[in-house]
Amino acid sequence: MSDETPTDPQEAIDSRGERRREELDDRIFEHSAGDEQEGVPFVGAGPGNPRLLTVAGAELLEAADLVVHAGSLVNSELLDEYCGHADLVNSVGKDLEELIPLMRDAYEDGDDVVRLHSGDPAIYGAAIEQMDALEHEGVPTYFVPGVTSAFAASATLRTQLTLNEVSNHVAFTRPQGKTLTPEEDHISDFVEMGDVTTCIYLGTHAVRDTMDRLLEDDHDPDTPVAVIYHASWPDEDVIVGSIGDIADKVEEAGYRASALVVIGDAVTGAGYERSFLYGDWANRGSSGESSETEAGDD
Amino acid sequence: MSDETPTDPQEAIDSRGERRREELDDRIFEHSAGDEQEGVPFVGAGPGNPRLLTVAGAELLEAADLVVHAGSLVNSELLDEYCGHADLVNSVGKDLEELIPLMRDAYEDGDDVVRLHSGDPAIYGAAIEQMDALEHEGVPTYFVPGVTSAFAASATLRTQLTLNEVSNHVAFTRPQGKTLTPEEDHISDFVEMGDVTTCIYLGTHAVRDTMDRLLEDDHDPDTPVAVIYHASWPDEDVIVGSIGDIADKVEEAGYRASALVVIGDAVTGAGYERSFLYGDWANRGSSGESSETEAGDD
Repeated sequence: MSDETPTDPQEAIDSRGERRREELDDRIFEHSAGDEQEGVPFVGAGPGNPRLLTVAGAELLEAADLVVHAGSLVNSELLDEYCGHADLVNSVGKDLEELIPLMRDAYEDGDDVVRLHSGDPAIYGAAIEQMDALEHEGVPTYFVPGVTSAFAASATLRTQLTLNEVSNHVAFTRPQGKTLTPEEDHISDFVEMGDVTTCIYLGTHAVRDTMDRLLEDDHDPDTPVAVIYHASWPDEDVIVGSIGDIADKVEEAGYRASALVVIGDAVTGAGYERSFLYGDWANRGSSGESSETEAGDD
Repeated sequence: MSDETPTDPQEAIDSRGERRREELDDRIFEHSAGDEQEGVPFVGAGPGNPRLLTVAGAELLEAADLVVHAGSLVNSELLDEYCGHADLVNSVGKDLEELIPLMRDAYEDGDDVVRLHSGDPAIYGAAIEQMDALEHEGVPTYFVPGVTSAFAASATLRTQLTLNEVSNHVAFTRPQGKTLTPEEDHISDFVEMGDVTTCIYLGTHAVRDTMDRLLEDDHDPDTPVAVIYHASWPDEDVIVGSIGDIADKVEEAGYRASALVVIGDAVTGAGYERSFLYGDWANRGSSGESSETEAGDD
């Protein structure tokens, strides 16, 4: 599909975006997540620790000739462990006009190409625009999911993001700033609900502003907040406090990026009630019950 | 720590829960997520496909003598692939009073014990009550995170749960029913926000009621909805529709459990704007920018 005319990713994105609106991709119904597929996989590297990569991701990286990775967002230990034989390209600072032909040409030369994003590529990634541009060039693509940093954070905190009688819901969110308007900032709404664990991505630099807004909105200053820097990395650090004091603690630690902020009573795991899902439910009987058995696990 | 007196998990939970309130566990600060730790790991099996288990999870299962798993919630292919040499115990129908001594005794006999939950154990799992009861018996425990089914669903749908100019936030939620009161059901609130991708767990049996409530609350009947049955399993199935018609489609397919419901424009991936994170941002300069570079990835 490629020819001598230069790639125009924007045109490709517009064209594929229109297709997305009109008809669903056949491959949605032909493949299951985790299956081997033809093309360039967009792989979630997980939160950082190489052991938290998926088996599929490890196999794809080990077989890759070219790995385009998200620079400092991916733990270099993971690249060292799985990408010994591959050419490594850092995507940071390169635009689509540079990245797309690079991946396309390698793929068309018969190389195994992997695009490696941090965490899960469906959460605050910018994968689709690259995928649509590659597909437009005739290069098939697909997603391989990963463990997001909020799950590494909850594992580190030895807690659950949902917890019986404490938290019934989880929000992955980001604060207002260059990308989001104040109207699009829902952090105070999530906290207001009272039974939501609010996980803030991309908000390390804005912890003070975020907490100030929560205090202005009359939220309890004692609401627990944890800040997990580089969850699952060797230099992982945990700061625990409250809406009232966490900003001071984060500023003292000096973190301006790469941390996840978790707000809510689930931070400590205190106060939960036993679910009894492992006991009585099996004897409860009725037909609607089959779904409730799911509640024992994700 | 164990003796001849019978285990009382409720007493253990109360006692450990009190400790959680008073002081944070030292291990929170001593270990990073993904590290090898002493004790019984509570491992996220991922969404189903054995390749979507983490490397850490695979290693722990392969070394295990006893695996207590979540029955039909875990794909049997995964048990076949990684647990060939282990004793397998299905937790479904067993209460804590049975499970805790079983795991404790095996651990104290020197066996490698793994507790395997589906998805990520922090999302609608009931891990903590088992962990607190084991810890009270002197058996250390820890979490190993996993890929949640929503990430398998988005991979199958070939979309992102957050998407520039389409969806800024993600909610993991469940509908009202035996566990949640109507006041604790926030699905309509999340949909109302307009830029949230709402992922409903444990709600397959309640799709009709959930969609009826959304229509009563005057949400646009054309809002895209996808239902992903057994995301990443061999029998994975995808149903795509809208708030107005998805209930009919799900009832026709006959699913009453084991599906994830995704509501929002991110379902199709149409209408997004190029992020330009791979282009101009590197030249933008100012100090707050370091955090914005995270926006390129999770």
